Formats: sequence, C-alpha cells, structure tokens
Amino acid sequence: MKSALVVLSGGQDSTTCLYWALDRFGAGRVEAVTFDYGQRHRIELACAAKVASRAGVPHTVLPINTFTAFGGNALTDAAIPVQTDAVPATGLPNTFVPGRNLIFLTFAAALAYQHGLHDLVTGVAQTDYSGYPDCRQATLQALEQALRLGMDYVVTIHTPLMFKSKAETVLLARDLGALPALADTHTCYYGQRPPCGECPACKLRAKGFAEAGIADPLIR
Amino acid sequence: MKSALVVLSGGQDSTTCLYWALDRFGAGRVEAVTFDYGQRHRIELACAAKVASRAGVPHTVLPINTFTAFGGNALTDAAIPVQTDAVPATGLPNTFVPGRNLIFLTFAAALAYQHGLHDLVTGVAQTDYSGYPDCRQATLQALEQALRLGMDYVVTIHTPLMFKSKAETVLLARDLGALPALADTHTCYYGQRPPCGECPACKLRAKGFAEAGIADPLIR
Repeated sequence: MKSALVVLSGGQDSTTCLYWALDRFGAGRVEAVTFDYGQRHRIELACAAKVASRAGVPHTVLPINTFTAFGGNALTDAAIPVQTDAVPATGLPNTFVPGRNLIFLTFAAALAYQHGLHDLVTGVAQTDYSGYPDCRQATLQALEQALRLGMDYVVTIHTPLMFKSKAETVLLARDLGALPALADTHTCYYGQRPPCGECPACKLRAKGFAEAGIADPLIR
Repeated sequence: MKSALVVLSGGQDSTTCLYWALDRFGAGRVEAVTFDYGQRHRIELACAAKVASRAGVPHTVLPINTFTAFGGNALTDAAIPVQTDAVPATGLPNTFVPGRNLIFLTFAAALAYQHGLHDLVTGVAQTDYSGYPDCRQATLQALEQALRLGMDYVVTIHTPLMFKSKAETVLLARDLGALPALADTHTCYYGQRPPCGECPACKLRAKGFAEAGIADPLIR
C-alpha cells in the first residue's frame, strides 16, 4: 500500500503532478506539502491550499525562514525587481536561490519519513528549464541517493514532467482530469491575477496551452 | 586563494574543525556559520559566537524554523524528554531529526555560493556515531555530488574528524592550539554548565579527554 507526498507550490506543474499522483497511487494515498519560504507572492500559498482542498488531500504547510535571511534574491526580497534575463555574474536569473529545490526535497523527505511515506513527487522539468541546475534529472538522482543514505530510509523521487514540454504537460493535465484545478493555480512572476500575460512565466504558460490547443481555465 | 566555511555548532568537534580550517586555509580565509534551528539549549548559540569571536572569524547565524514545525523531536521540543536509548520504532535515539545534517550542509553550501567559497568543513564523525546516518562518509559523498550538480558550483565537503576517535580529536585539538577554545564549547545533552557529567554526551567527551591524557579545559 504505497502512498506519496507531492511537493505542491500552487503552480500549474505541481498541480498536474498532484493529479498524476492521485492517478498513480490512488485516492486516499496522496498527501501534499507546501513550503512557506517567504515567497513575495503570498497568493501561491492560497492557491496551493485551494488545489489541495479541491483534490481532497491532506496538506501540510512547512515554514522555512532561512532563504529570506540570505537576502539578495528577487523571489523572496520585495526590494529587488525581478530580472528575468541572466545576471552576468552567475549566468542565472536573479530569481535563482542556490539549492532551493534541494532544500524543499530534503524537508519533504523528512516529512515523508515522519509520515511513513516512501514516494516523493515533484513537478520540476528539465525541458523548459531556465537555468536552474537543481531541476535537472542528474541532480535529483544524486539527491535521492543522499536522502536514502542520510535518512537510512528508502525514498523515491518521481518527476513525471521531467522531459515534457509545456504543451505535453497541458495534455497530461487534461488526460488526468486536472484542467479544472488549473484554474486555481498561480503562474505570473508579478503576482497578478488575472495574469499579466507579459512576463516570461505567463508567456511560457500561454504558449503551452496554445500548442496543446486547449484554453487555459485560468483565463476567462 | 581558497577560503572555507565551517559549520560551527558550538560543540567540541566543530570548534576543533574551525582550528583545523584556520591551519589548513590560513587566518583570514575562514568563515563560520551556525544554525539557529530551535535547539533547546540556546547556550550552544552563545558558545558558537564566543568560539568564532575568539578565533577572529566572520560568523553568520542562519535561522531555520522548519524543524520545530515538524515537532516530535527531543532536540527541539522541550516537552519531549531526551531518550538516549534507541527508540524501538526507528532504531535511532529520539534526538534524531531526519536529514538534519543534509539541511545544514545544503544551506551552508548556498551561503558558500553567495560568499564565493568552495570549501565546507563539518565536524561529523563516523567513528563514535550514535546511529545518525547523515554523518556517514557515504552520505556526505552523495550530498557533495547533489550540491555540485544542484548549484552548478564546485563545493568540497571536508570532514577532518570522520574516522577519528574522540581521543584522537582531543589530540588534534591540542596540536592545533584549540584547547583554550574548547573551554567555550558546549556538550551536555541536558544543557548544564558545568556539564552534568552523567549524560552520554558528557561521558563520551570525558572518555576522549581521559584516553588522550589531557584535562578538559571546560572542567575546572
């Protein structure tokens, strides 16, 4: 009787993964965890709660106050404007928090350990990845190994979207019956609702729905 | 010109590692980081600050409020008595926080990234290890790989005490001139100062000094 823990951000990809997990592990065998890490768009937390509630899965919100203590990052520091082009010094957008996904998955693994779950699900994708090395397949494989050894406990990290394009992810969401839930998700970098339609995150989402030939339920 | 970041808990082992790093990388090339993760003995934070100050190294304290949100652990939950025997359900003492060291080292690596440092130093040891799988050599090797891939940045995790007995660690501290600093460290599980002398941590420390034939500067 396997049960899974989904890392749920409140966005399109992790919501699709929640429905993937429900399909794969069965209703009543899925939990979700969301991290309150000081994200500047608090709406993400409300979206995650709404998505979990609609799907009927237990939902844990864990605080992480460490990233904001680092400072200097546009995702958690409201004083810093989002700069979507790569910052010359690092070659990464200034929304990059080094190792953020490693932290999320390690805390998720600790929660899975406490709850007796062995399967983690995350919506990271290598395909559309905008320079985030902690979303790559090789990184997650190494982390899985570190988690297994470090907790002396078998955890498996599932990444159902790893090699999918955004359009393929939209089609998967449709096949899983997740489209209505996508109306509750959040994508816009600028935190706008309805979405701004202009930021790279909005454009990527719109492109995915357009290529899949499906209307985005978020936009009415 | 390499510089290192030492994970400094305020205990005997990490303090010895701080002096190891000063010897290895040179004065002016060492920083320290301490995590305020809700440890029930706040004296550890004061000890770490004192040790860093005496050694003249920059000292960053990063908060982590996530472990206390988990609950159910004797190291962070004052309501739970320390139980040093293994808990039958897990085979580990109830001071075990799953993956704690993975989290510490990942945040330390993120700080190293921000500060342009490539070397991490931690005082974990496999020799005297009381059941903590996140202190083993194989775990740290896997984690190092995950960190390198996940941050696209070369970090090396140094574990100078990994295969040393407590007595050997005491002798190393003597050779590095770290003995005076050990007077500022904290070991007792019960948070007592002078140490209780009865808890397993106190006994292990006393045994190490006794076998090394050196008086513990903490006990006067």
